[in-house]
Amino acid sequence: MSSRQAAKAKGTTASSLADPPGELGGFLKEQRAAVDALLPSLLPQPVGEDDRVRAAMAYSLLAPGKRMRPLLALAVSSIFGGEPARALPAACTLEMVHAASLILDDLPCMDGASIRRGRPATHVAYGEATSILAAVALLNHAYGVIAGIDAEAGLRDRIRAALARRLSEAIGTGGVIGGQQADLAGAGRSVSLRELEFVHSHKTGSLFIASAEVGALLMGVSDGDLLALENYAKNLGLAFQITDDILDAEGSVASTGKDVGRDAERTTFVTLCGVDGARRLAVELVEAAVAHLDRFGRRSRLLRELASFVARRDR
Amino acid sequence: MSSRQAAKAKGTTASSLADPPGELGGFLKEQRAAVDALLPSLLPQPVGEDDRVRAAMAYSLLAPGKRMRPLLALAVSSIFGGEPARALPAACTLEMVHAASLILDDLPCMDGASIRRGRPATHVAYGEATSILAAVALLNHAYGVIAGIDAEAGLRDRIRAALARRLSEAIGTGGVIGGQQADLAGAGRSVSLRELEFVHSHKTGSLFIASAEVGALLMGVSDGDLLALENYAKNLGLAFQITDDILDAEGSVASTGKDVGRDAERTTFVTLCGVDGARRLAVELVEAAVAHLDRFGRRSRLLRELASFVARRDR
Repeated sequence: MSSRQAAKAKGTTASSLADPPGELGGFLKEQRAAVDALLPSLLPQPVGEDDRVRAAMAYSLLAPGKRMRPLLALAVSSIFGGEPARALPAACTLEMVHAASLILDDLPCMDGASIRRGRPATHVAYGEATSILAAVALLNHAYGVIAGIDAEAGLRDRIRAALARRLSEAIGTGGVIGGQQADLAGAGRSVSLRELEFVHSHKTGSLFIASAEVGALLMGVSDGDLLALENYAKNLGLAFQITDDILDAEGSVASTGKDVGRDAERTTFVTLCGVDGARRLAVELVEAAVAHLDRFGRRSRLLRELASFVARRDR
Repeated sequence: MSSRQAAKAKGTTASSLADPPGELGGFLKEQRAAVDALLPSLLPQPVGEDDRVRAAMAYSLLAPGKRMRPLLALAVSSIFGGEPARALPAACTLEMVHAASLILDDLPCMDGASIRRGRPATHVAYGEATSILAAVALLNHAYGVIAGIDAEAGLRDRIRAALARRLSEAIGTGGVIGGQQADLAGAGRSVSLRELEFVHSHKTGSLFIASAEVGALLMGVSDGDLLALENYAKNLGLAFQITDDILDAEGSVASTGKDVGRDAERTTFVTLCGVDGARRLAVELVEAAVAHLDRFGRRSRLLRELASFVARRDR
């Protein structure tokens, strides 16, 4: 492993996550526990004697994390009266896709990170070939889970197809993969704020948007409501990434699970705008996100709290 | 690139494919042309200025090939009276998945092949990171295409979900990915015939089975018919792989698009059974495949011809 890789590490540690007090705190804590309880059972059944790929899938998927994307889906579903338990399997597919993207992002040929969520990155623990297969298997399995959620779980076939379609768009060249491509294209050169926003509105924002869509589509919301939630999630995703950059610049390994200053060598919102500037940008994005919730009135309280929590979280 | 990689090359060249005469020959030629005509339009729309991942997807997907998997799906659908044009989009997703698997298979950390289908492998032409993203994007897009085929094309939502479910099982740890894992686990050591059959009944056989399932599910066949077609395709897939090994051992770069004897360093059906033994095995598998077609009577003529063609093809 190169010293460059050794110096790079990403993600949240296994220590307890600091949730906010009140309704949101209770929701996050309870639903994160529900997500964490369901995720292992959604993994494919063991096959054959050599189970290395499945082990790598579990290693990545079950590593402690914030579970922001499923929680966003569940929060959106809940403001329309959705029973979180019914939305859980679909919400969990977002964590599978996220875990797949983290595995690929950390590969030596991509970002070359050696630590993720306070532990060796998947390619460090399982090797490159197995990690790539695990990432592909997680993505593939997410679609299998969506296609397999039975109708009794409240998922009609038409909604199921809509979920898969939205997910595919969010992940594809116009989404997460397009953002990753732009990120790679900017490596080793100076990147403008506009370029950086493009990277993260795709790498991070697209899956936030898909998360809101999953929650909304499960509840059969109107096109107008869907669009408002997409705009909310788009701004929220970018605010989330900026806060990540701030925590990265300020934090320690102990509190963030990352090596201090790993971002010094690449362009981030902090290197471009400074900590104060990045903080202001995050606050503006949260305000922009929340502005799209007006049409939902009091129902949107949870999503408003979630947005302001995202920008002031400490991990 | 290492000399080991430089010596490894895989796939069919761009030169014309030798189809058999008669009904099957006409079907293969016509439907392969239809697949080749549709594939480019199924790629995602270009996004942004940097379109490298999409270019790598096109490079891999549109490279000349036998299109065996979509052709199998179309042949199965046709014996139930299916209009090939209606089955085309779903059939083409199998070629997307196949192209994705070839990209990954050729990576330096996997099989390390430098030539594929007579041209530089995707990772040679586009680099490792872009190739991995292209493979993931192809797989992801296959699900998007399935989810997006509209109901007017004759695809009911329930069938669409069944297609996605079957595809996910065929690709996952119990299918193609499991076979690739077993293949990697056997690298650099002697492999038994049983192990080799496991590898290829998963790496190749699973997607052949899925292809037959796609054709059958589109036509709403009975469970008994589906099972018979799965068994047919399972045997056909293994026969196809064995014939690949024989062509590899006997062929030249000019006729097969592969460097002569690239398989000398790994276990194949030819290294284990000799050319004659491998040929006998392929014939036995074709017979086993065809035996599962008895229930379909005269309707199955095309599938019978396809099976015997697979074992005596010259590329």
